[in-house]
Amino acid sequence: MTITLLFKRLALLFAILQIAGNVYADDGYKLWLGYNAVADKKLAAKYKAQLAHLKFAGNTPSLNAAREELLTGLEGTLALRPQIGDKIEYPALLVGIASSLKLPGSVCSESELDKTGNEGYLIKTVIINQKKCIVITAKTDIGVLHGVFGFLKLLQTQQSIDALNILEYPRIMYRVLDHWDNLNRTVERGYAGASIWNWHKLPGYIDQRYIDYARASASVGINGSVVNNVNANALMLTPEYLEKVKALANTFRPYGIKVYLSVKFSSPIDIGGLKTADPLNAQVMQWWKDKADEIYRSIPDFGGFLVKANSEGQPGPQAYGRSHADGANMLADALLPHNGIVMWRAFVYDNNVPDDRAKQAYNEFKPLDGQFKKNVIIQVKNGPIDFQPREPFHPLFGAMPNTPLMMEFQLTQEYLGFSTNLVYEAPLFKESLESDTYAMGKGSTVSKVIQGAFNPKLITGMAGVANIGTDINWCGHPFAQANWYAFGRLAWNPDLSSGDIASDWLKMTFSNNPGFISPMKAMMLQSRETAVNYMTPLGLHHIMGVNTHYGPGPWVDNAGRADWNAVYYHKADSAGIGFNRSSTGSNAVAQYQPQVRDLFENLATCPDEYLLWFHHVGWDYKMRSGATLWDEMVHRYYLGADAVKQMELSWGKMAGYVDEERFGSVKQLLAIQYDEATTWRNSCVLYFQTFSKRPIPAQYPKPDKPLSFYRDRKFLLAPGIGGNQ
Amino acid sequence: MTITLLFKRLALLFAILQIAGNVYADDGYKLWLGYNAVADKKLAAKYKAQLAHLKFAGNTPSLNAAREELLTGLEGTLALRPQIGDKIEYPALLVGIASSLKLPGSVCSESELDKTGNEGYLIKTVIINQKKCIVITAKTDIGVLHGVFGFLKLLQTQQSIDALNILEYPRIMYRVLDHWDNLNRTVERGYAGASIWNWHKLPGYIDQRYIDYARASASVGINGSVVNNVNANALMLTPEYLEKVKALANTFRPYGIKVYLSVKFSSPIDIGGLKTADPLNAQVMQWWKDKADEIYRSIPDFGGFLVKANSEGQPGPQAYGRSHADGANMLADALLPHNGIVMWRAFVYDNNVPDDRAKQAYNEFKPLDGQFKKNVIIQVKNGPIDFQPREPFHPLFGAMPNTPLMMEFQLTQEYLGFSTNLVYEAPLFKESLESDTYAMGKGSTVSKVIQGAFNPKLITGMAGVANIGTDINWCGHPFAQANWYAFGRLAWNPDLSSGDIASDWLKMTFSNNPGFISPMKAMMLQSRETAVNYMTPLGLHHIMGVNTHYGPGPWVDNAGRADWNAVYYHKADSAGIGFNRSSTGSNAVAQYQPQVRDLFENLATCPDEYLLWFHHVGWDYKMRSGATLWDEMVHRYYLGADAVKQMELSWGKMAGYVDEERFGSVKQLLAIQYDEATTWRNSCVLYFQTFSKRPIPAQYPKPDKPLSFYRDRKFLLAPGIGGNQ
Repeated sequence: MTITLLFKRLALLFAILQIAGNVYADDGYKLWLGYNAVADKKLAAKYKAQLAHLKFAGNTPSLNAAREELLTGLEGTLALRPQIGDKIEYPALLVGIASSLKLPGSVCSESELDKTGNEGYLIKTVIINQKKCIVITAKTDIGVLHGVFGFLKLLQTQQSIDALNILEYPRIMYRVLDHWDNLNRTVERGYAGASIWNWHKLPGYIDQRYIDYARASASVGINGSVVNNVNANALMLTPEYLEKVKALANTFRPYGIKVYLSVKFSSPIDIGGLKTADPLNAQVMQWWKDKADEIYRSIPDFGGFLVKANSEGQPGPQAYGRSHADGANMLADALLPHNGIVMWRAFVYDNNVPDDRAKQAYNEFKPLDGQFKKNVIIQVKNGPIDFQPREPFHPLFGAMPNTPLMMEFQLTQEYLGFSTNLVYEAPLFKESLESDTYAMGKGSTVSKVIQGAFNPKLITGMAGVANIGTDINWCGHPFAQANWYAFGRLAWNPDLSSGDIASDWLKMTFSNNPGFISPMKAMMLQSRETAVNYMTPLGLHHIMGVNTHYGPGPWVDNAGRADWNAVYYHKADSAGIGFNRSSTGSNAVAQYQPQVRDLFENLATCPDEYLLWFHHVGWDYKMRSGATLWDEMVHRYYLGADAVKQMELSWGKMAGYVDEERFGSVKQLLAIQYDEATTWRNSCVLYFQTFSKRPIPAQYPKPDKPLSFYRDRKFLLAPGIGGNQ
Repeated sequence: MTITLLFKRLALLFAILQIAGNVYADDGYKLWLGYNAVADKKLAAKYKAQLAHLKFAGNTPSLNAAREELLTGLEGTLALRPQIGDKIEYPALLVGIASSLKLPGSVCSESELDKTGNEGYLIKTVIINQKKCIVITAKTDIGVLHGVFGFLKLLQTQQSIDALNILEYPRIMYRVLDHWDNLNRTVERGYAGASIWNWHKLPGYIDQRYIDYARASASVGINGSVVNNVNANALMLTPEYLEKVKALANTFRPYGIKVYLSVKFSSPIDIGGLKTADPLNAQVMQWWKDKADEIYRSIPDFGGFLVKANSEGQPGPQAYGRSHADGANMLADALLPHNGIVMWRAFVYDNNVPDDRAKQAYNEFKPLDGQFKKNVIIQVKNGPIDFQPREPFHPLFGAMPNTPLMMEFQLTQEYLGFSTNLVYEAPLFKESLESDTYAMGKGSTVSKVIQGAFNPKLITGMAGVANIGTDINWCGHPFAQANWYAFGRLAWNPDLSSGDIASDWLKMTFSNNPGFISPMKAMMLQSRETAVNYMTPLGLHHIMGVNTHYGPGPWVDNAGRADWNAVYYHKADSAGIGFNRSSTGSNAVAQYQPQVRDLFENLATCPDEYLLWFHHVGWDYKMRSGATLWDEMVHRYYLGADAVKQMELSWGKMAGYVDEERFGSVKQLLAIQYDEATTWRNSCVLYFQTFSKRPIPAQYPKPDKPLSFYRDRKFLLAPGIGGNQ
């Protein structure tokens, strides 16, 4: 090698490094699909050797999307452009639906394929012509796409691909993101900018975001998107807007994602010119049938309707003396010929203040069990109040054996510190899913209920209220992306562990380095318990700021109605604190199966986590820890805030593992979170102290500001309360 | 070279190309600062040889920003990392303020430096120790930063740097972006998503966008930012928000950009607890003084206030029987000790409907000439109505010789098709700037007036109502970025040509290839005239949809007040069309100097462009073209729509020059624009035909839908009308 040559090669290398330096200033837009180069050089070389040739069968829109994703992924992770051909060359990666790949019969059996269903896939190491190959296959195009994402995940997380035998299929049928997005692009409870749906520019303008949204969602198995707010605007069903919805549906279709719409129950009046929306009125029924037919003419695979009715002022069938079943079934009839479904929300919120708001959904829906058409699914929030940092599971799960029940989780952090608080929600989701309803005896977990394990005829579903907006990083907080990711993974398979999901997400999003993964996984797994501690420990709930739900508001006692007030929920007084939902109180415990009821009813067996949810407990009550309730509560608040400080310190050591932009972003956000956590702690400890009259134990630093300071702060313009247009 | 070696080198090259392939999928975020690699390889090599060594003196925040920008720019354009040192090595690039660079006296003279002022710069090729060097220098840090941007522009536009002798300085003192951004992140007349200011996360979270906003703005010489809507919320002046404003000011400061606030005139009542906002009330005066002092304690270089008073329902001094001067001067007194200024808007819009709205600003402000304090500048829209596609220049320019007048242009396309219409606005701005007021005799252009040429004691300014939002590409349309760019360049130097600015922007943003520049520059330069033709030819104005200002609404006749109606402005009837503002009509012409007045007054000399602005003209009036007015009007409408089709065809040929993402984005937007242009054409031709009763000349295809189709369309939720919170 001459000196000149050496110089030229060095210059080349230099150029590569420089370009790389630019590329890796990461604004977070690419989510977990950044396809960062595999850092383990040996492994990367091995991968490349195993993937030198590609045979990719078929060219439908979904398969083309799969091929493009695969090539993008290989290029990013391995800088590999495999040789592509129809003839199999070895080592080969074979991708396509099984029937068109024309594999030898021994490669994958009919029964294996059948198990993958319409959306699952196989990834197998097989021997063809005495040569090792990797096959990604499925019964459908969408299955192949999911298989490609599954395969790329192996590379992204640096798994061995030497001897693969993966069979994946979704345990739940409808895996849907609910966007609470208004037509004017405000997002109810949105903390990541405006709505990503640019209705004004639709249908003519297909933003790259729509495609990347579909890619990211499909990569974790999401197969549905409700694009508008449950507090729905009837305009959405006018031809002008349906044309826009059609454009989105066309964009999502290659990714196996169906579009759904939230509908306003009074639409026949609002836009249909009718005098009533009575679900038993023939004209109303016809109007909805005609509307459904109109929709399916332009969107043949339209998913169906999501309905919030007779709740928080939304119109519904009860205005006409009809039941939720009457309302839902009428819509179901309109959709059934087209295979559409109705997702009818159980989050009902009557105009009259109930003795215990936690009981209302059960009271209204339990009697309707078995009365819904087969294409109706009742969408039930994970807990009986409203997406609190911690709630016991919703008593409807297990209480309606003859009715499909769909889980509704909230990804957007309405009650979890908005997008400035790092709260990994998978542990919250898992806690709900693993709760035992005892509906069919021990082991009848919520997870099994929503998988239809006790009634295989029922349709199944899981919804996540999206945390997505126009922020460049989609979710406002780099770590909030993990909640979108985790939702999809758990909807696909509720039995996955929070830790494994966190680990996958961290590796795909940031780095595979164990020096990063180990502390960051621990941080994520602890983060939700930390938020519970600094916000609502020991079963406290709904003590956030009124209306905005931002920050602490335990003192709120003058909201528009009783059950909007914090004092309604915590019931602190000189004797103690907590909502008595035992048999001596509201008796909400009676809504659970006897085994669960007794567990919660009995102060001695009621878990600390739910103590003040179910009981009004004296300030000096001796906790399992040995401390009094007051001291334990104070302890939890300090524990929570201190844990955020630990998160800050932990993240501070990660500078070497992540790009400067995201490092700085998370660093700033954790500093805000610490400020907010101490505000929560100080506010609640000082406020509850006005009832307990007990001192803050000496080991804790006293709040440096008086209660009045916190009470007087105003957050009139907190995000997420934009009007519903 | 062995085969292995060759293979490895090829693999390396391949890797580079692959990475490059990814990098250049461009989402538009980087604006004109993408620093694309210089495609002319010979020239790039020459540049690199000329820039091998760098001496960069100083390390203040501004100089550090300049250094980082320079290195980013050299790396992007040339993949060059110059050798950096204190000792001069040759060939050298020397950067820093003149006093710290310690250059030989001959290198740049005191007089040259003096001319650069506080913000300008010198870029010179000089001989030091008999070696050629390039020097970028200035009197101030900010000057150096501007110089670095100026130098990088040379590379981005592939200019020779062999013999440089550039002296640049701004012709206008205050070059300010006005953001009509509400605290709830809606943007009045915003068409690019939500407000980029995330008030909830401020002051703790400094979004990378804020820094990139400052970089981009500084790169074109913008030195001020009014961060909130002129329809102001008094909350902005509360300590909580001022803390957030301070964080923005700290972020912008290194880039030479000062923060300004729009203030609500009633703030002393709204947040100050006073009973009055009377500007002559001692308590009110004291309140504003105290507020100013409070602001300057945390933002020592705060720019000042922008005020919309007694206009469209905003409070103002007239409520107390005081004049605009009384109001402005009271605020000016509060700001003067801190060197702050008051930008007082002349866009007044009385509660009473005037005989001619075009006359109001002149009527109210002309009598106040000379009555304003020296740190008050009156902000006057370019035309007397409201940012129409074409207006004659505002008669106030040249009418207030003893008052500073600041130009207000609108970058956001409120009346120019929002962000789906490609309209390059520099020709509109230049048309205003080059209009001759005759105030001091022939040649007294608006440009000279706002440069203070006739009264050097006055402060000078130019404001642009920003078109920036959370869209990843900032402005909603890739080409809308050009309007932000052009505004900055013209505020710095109003004598620049639209073509040169377009050319620079195209090269910096897309490509230097003449095959791209030539047709695209032509397309940009024609685009505004095209929009005038398909929207409001021959002096028509304000015939857009009511309230939204979206699309055609020539039929609007039932808005809340007479001068919100299109019919008020076009006055079409069976005899003809147009607003008689001659001496036989509203006599608005009398607000101009006699030479201008006579030009407009006289039907024979009134330019076609302003014909229907100043005259009600018969349908059969013979135009200069020889056609009748009706035929000419129809011709213009068809010409406009057809020109958009030509833009589509022209852009369609550009695929090879630009990345796929932006190519696809513009292609989709032009298709929408064509649809909107034909809608405009058909609506207006059909509507005006109901008065003219004359046929559409046979050579034009008839509209395929009846007038009722267009009249009946509703755009209730067009963007940009979000409430002011």
